[in-house]
Parts: sequence; structure tokens; C-alpha cells
Amino acid sequence: MLPQAAWRLDPSPAIWPDEVRVRVDRLNLDAASFRQLREASGGDPAAIRTAVLEIIASRGKMHNPVTGSGGMLTGIVAEAGGSSPLGLRPGDRIATLVSLSLTPLAVTDGLARWDGRSGQVPCAGHAILFGRSIAAVLPADLPVPLALAVLDVCGAPALTHRVVTAAVAGAGRGRPGPVVAVLGAAGKSGSRSAAAARRAGAGPIIGLVPDEREAALLRTAWRGARACDQVVIADARDPVAVAAAVSGAGGPADITIVCVDVPGCEGGAILATAQGGTVIFFSMATSFTAAALGAEGVAADVTMLVGNGYVPGHAQLALDLIRAEPSVKALFENRLGDRPGRRRQPGEDGDGRG
Amino acid sequence: MLPQAAWRLDPSPAIWPDEVRVRVDRLNLDAASFRQLREASGGDPAAIRTAVLEIIASRGKMHNPVTGSGGMLTGIVAEAGGSSPLGLRPGDRIATLVSLSLTPLAVTDGLARWDGRSGQVPCAGHAILFGRSIAAVLPADLPVPLALAVLDVCGAPALTHRVVTAAVAGAGRGRPGPVVAVLGAAGKSGSRSAAAARRAGAGPIIGLVPDEREAALLRTAWRGARACDQVVIADARDPVAVAAAVSGAGGPADITIVCVDVPGCEGGAILATAQGGTVIFFSMATSFTAAALGAEGVAADVTMLVGNGYVPGHAQLALDLIRAEPSVKALFENRLGDRPGRRRQPGEDGDGRG
Repeated sequence: MLPQAAWRLDPSPAIWPDEVRVRVDRLNLDAASFRQLREASGGDPAAIRTAVLEIIASRGKMHNPVTGSGGMLTGIVAEAGGSSPLGLRPGDRIATLVSLSLTPLAVTDGLARWDGRSGQVPCAGHAILFGRSIAAVLPADLPVPLALAVLDVCGAPALTHRVVTAAVAGAGRGRPGPVVAVLGAAGKSGSRSAAAARRAGAGPIIGLVPDEREAALLRTAWRGARACDQVVIADARDPVAVAAAVSGAGGPADITIVCVDVPGCEGGAILATAQGGTVIFFSMATSFTAAALGAEGVAADVTMLVGNGYVPGHAQLALDLIRAEPSVKALFENRLGDRPGRRRQPGEDGDGRG
Repeated sequence: MLPQAAWRLDPSPAIWPDEVRVRVDRLNLDAASFRQLREASGGDPAAIRTAVLEIIASRGKMHNPVTGSGGMLTGIVAEAGGSSPLGLRPGDRIATLVSLSLTPLAVTDGLARWDGRSGQVPCAGHAILFGRSIAAVLPADLPVPLALAVLDVCGAPALTHRVVTAAVAGAGRGRPGPVVAVLGAAGKSGSRSAAAARRAGAGPIIGLVPDEREAALLRTAWRGARACDQVVIADARDPVAVAAAVSGAGGPADITIVCVDVPGCEGGAILATAQGGTVIFFSMATSFTAAALGAEGVAADVTMLVGNGYVPGHAQLALDLIRAEPSVKALFENRLGDRPGRRRQPGEDGDGRG
């Protein structure tokens, strides 16, 4: 059984030769998990803390049994086994890029320093990284919260970059780049996917957002950088509206990227995409059957990709993008300023996939 | 709202210029839907009939509200609108290749001729095909039940053919074809996907089945044709066992095709696939999050495709395959002989996706 499917992991601190033990200093619960815990606890910080401690104690990992999700962590490498392939050394300050739902974890401080008001959880304890794990050494030139936010969803821009690059190569030299539509373009993964598409040689990029507030945010942030050539407003859950908006802005899209973290966006993405085109689903709210039967139901010959969160080099690409694109950095910093209790709107992406 | 997402469709017989009205003679309920109806009705045929009639009357389509699925239908074209793109003429005997869950339907005979014992439902009534629909004219040279079974899951071999063809072209002339693993290789979509992979130029094809009975079926059927070079036995829900079995038979696979209609096969498919390889998920039991987080969790750089049931030319390809491959035809006829009440085993694929 793989560690995510297991109900309980063994969090004992001894490591095998291909493992790494990390001294944990912070958990970053994913947005869906924290929201569920807050709601189930009636917003009482002490009750949330108790709930998290009980999950970790009973499962050996911070794997929310209701949402199925986890989050990520940061810490300092304490010991690296001699045959660990991760390239980490004791003392490295790292963030894990695999979900907490499959990471053995023990907490020793009762989460005493956590106020229970956000998914950012200061903590003391240890975690084990397996041989086939992923971790990134945190860069010295970026604030930790910004670096964490960037790394949290770094699979999306990397896979976008790969797919757009292949489309550009397939079209041949001198041909216009593919039309790219990004649903949820003002969000964290959406904005960086747009920037990655631009960097990979995309043609016109159409950013779809749910309302004028998001559109203004996107237009302001992109000023100068113009990663999106067109900003359109539509409810991503309304297939006909999405198709019309993308079509009216130069679509249909050759490549459509779904970064809207609400259910029901499959049909719009499919209808907005040209025959022979590609849809990449990054949203964890995607329904496999809705995508498969939806495409079949409208005779859409589109390639549909499950947004794999892992692409080799994804962490480096994501950090490079944020350094190179002040506009994306500005959008991120804006997002980080959001209050945790603020109601999320359709069209925003969540705080990571874990 | 798209017709599948709508609770109720308007089944009135008048057609728009791009629509087609069909005189229905048979519904082919999908396996998941029929099983649910039978269990909910305690196996009483009259109760099942009443349940189906109530669904059709209240929803204007045979869209099982519990399973979310439908099935397909056969009938005779009664009227084709002047601008219908489907190329059908009055009198054509057809099968629909889109789900009943999005097909307006009215029944006029109370399903009086149906015994309620299988998902094959003789019926009188009419259905409407939209402009963006898919239907196949039934071939004169094949028995209707066989043709229906073939058409029911015809997306799988077509997409397999496309993906393998691209891999062969990408590898370059004279290079060996890709290693292909088919999980659920003795089933309907699995056997035809293996045959399609062979036809597209695959290298070694590894067929995985759950038990010795299925293995024997596959070995017998393939005798002479040898669409699978290796037959291995493992529980597709056990990731480590699947990876070991495929690896021991010449894997890891460059392309893994998941045709096992039970939940929990994502991890095995991912682990059995080489870095840089592709997994195609045809099973409607696939979980999007299990696939996305599973690949990320083991740092698997695999392209994961949602098995789109529609690929242009898929019906023709499927019928050609069954004509050309006696072994596949034999497997199909064996499957058609299964009693409806027989307990399905993990490793068999279901009777269609709809």
C-alpha cells in the first residue's frame, strides 16, 4: 500500500538509508483542510488545535480524513541517509513538495505556539522523507512565506511550460504560437501558468476571471508584463458563458488551463477548446467522470491531462518565474495579504493541492 | 447548462434544424446503473421497470440519479434536420455513442416487453440527437449485440491507437516500439486497446489480469493473434504488486492503459510506468485526486490522460478491429455469454461508460 492510501504511517524517527529526517518548524495546511477543520470546530482555536493533534497522533501524518488532503511543511534537515537520492544535507532549510497526507510526522510541542487562526502552523517535531519524495531547499533571496506560496503549487507552471513548448515545436518554426486560455488567471497557479505559457512561446493568452474585482487585479498586476493579452469575465461553471467569452477574445483555445478550485468547470474548459486541442486540469475539484463523459457528450476531440503536480525541475522553474516577473510577484504578495477568514470567490485557486 | 448537467431535458418530438429524431427500439443501460437499480429494487423486475419509467418521465432522459450514468440506445432514424452534421438519413439503423445521460428520451410502451433481468431494454419511444452528438450506423455484417458491445466502449482503442502511434513516431524509424501495459487486458475495452496498440506499432504488450481464470481466457483468445506478449496476474489495486508484475514481464511500461473498472488502480498504473511515460485512464472508477496526488507523491514524471470517449473515427476503428482480429471477437463473444447476474470480478471492465 502506498503511504497516502494507508490509514496510519509509522512516524518513528529512525531512518532507512534512503530516507531523510527533518526537524519540522512549520506546517502549511492546505486551504481545503483548514477550512473544514475550522468549520467543524466552530472556529474555536483550541478545538482546531486539538483536532489537528488528534489527526497526527492517530494517523502518524497530517492527513485530514474528511478532505483527504494535507499540505506541506518546512524545516531543517536533521539527518540524511547515505543512499537518499534527494541531495539534501544536514542543516539545509527545506520545504516538502509532496503532500503531508503521505509524510510520516510526529509533533512534540502540542502546537502550543499556533493560534489556530490560519493554516500556517508553527510547530516542533520531526518528519520523514522517503527516497521517492520531493523537497526544495528554500532560496535565501526570497521571503519564506513568498517562497512557500510559490513552491506550494509549482507543478502547474512547469507542466504548462512543457505542453506549450511541445505545441510550439509541433507547429514548426515561424508559425504563430498556440492560443492559451487560463481559467482562474488571477489566482496563484493561474497567474504563474500564464507566465509560464508566455515564456514557452504561447500566442495570445486569454485570462478568464469571475468578476470585475479579479479582472482589475489581473490588469493592474500585469501592467507592463502583459502575460495575459485579454482578460475576460465569466463564471467558470457556466460552459456556454466560458466558451463565448474565450471565443470572443480570440479563441477557441488550443490549450486551456483550469486553475479554478470549484467543482463544475470541466464543461466550460472543454467547450472553450478547439478540436485537437488540450485541456490541463490543475484544480483538485476536477471530476474525472465529468471530464470524460463531458467531452464525449459534445464530441470534443480534446486531449485532457490530469495536472500532475510533479515535473522535474518544477521548483526551480517556479522560483525563476517569480524572480523574473515582477507582475507575478505582485499578484502573489497581494494574495498573501488576504485575510484567512475572507470568503473565497469562485475563480480563485486554493492554497495548494496537498 | 450542458444537457448532462441539467436535471431535466425536454423530450418533445419536434426537432431543430441541426437535430435528429430517432425511433428507439432498445436501451442498453450501463452496467453500473442497472446493478444499482436491481439492488435498490430487491431484484423485482416489475419494481425495476417502474423505477426506470419514473426516471425517464421525471428527467426526460435515462440518467440514473444515483450512479450519474446512462447507457446507449439503438433505433431507426425517423427525421433528420436539414443542417444536422451527423450524416444520418431516415431509415438508418443506428446506435448512439453519447451517453443516455444527455439524450432527450420519451418512452411510449411502458417498457412492457422488458423482463427487467438485464440492462438490454426493448422499448418503443423516441430520442433526440443534438448537432454535436455521435451516432454510428450499425453494420450489416455483424450481429447487433456484438456491434453494440463493440461500439459501447470504442473510445479506448481509438485513443490508445493515437497515443501509441505518436510514441512510435516520436521514437524515430527503426527504434523499438513502446512497451505497453494493459491493466484489465481480458475485458472489453482492455482487449481491444491491446489490439489497437499492436496495430499502432507497440513493442512488447503486457496484459495484467486479476486471476488465473482471466489469464486462461486471455491466453486462449489470443492464441495465434498474440496481442499480449506477456500475461501477468496481480490485483490492480495493489500498487507494489502491479509494479512488480509489469516490471518482471519486461516493464516498466512506456504507456499504461487502465481498463479495470474498480476504484483504487491509480497508484499501480503510475508505479508501473517509466519516468517520462504515459498513463491513459479509461476506467470511470478513476479518482482525479488519487491520480494527481499519487503521481506527485512518488515523484512520478508521467503524463496522465483522461480517457476521452470520443476520438474521430473511433466507431469505424473499433468495428475494423473486431473484423480483423478473430481473437478479440472471440473474447467479446465470450463476454456476451456472461449471465447478467454473475458477480463481476475486479479486473473485468464494465459494460460501457455512459
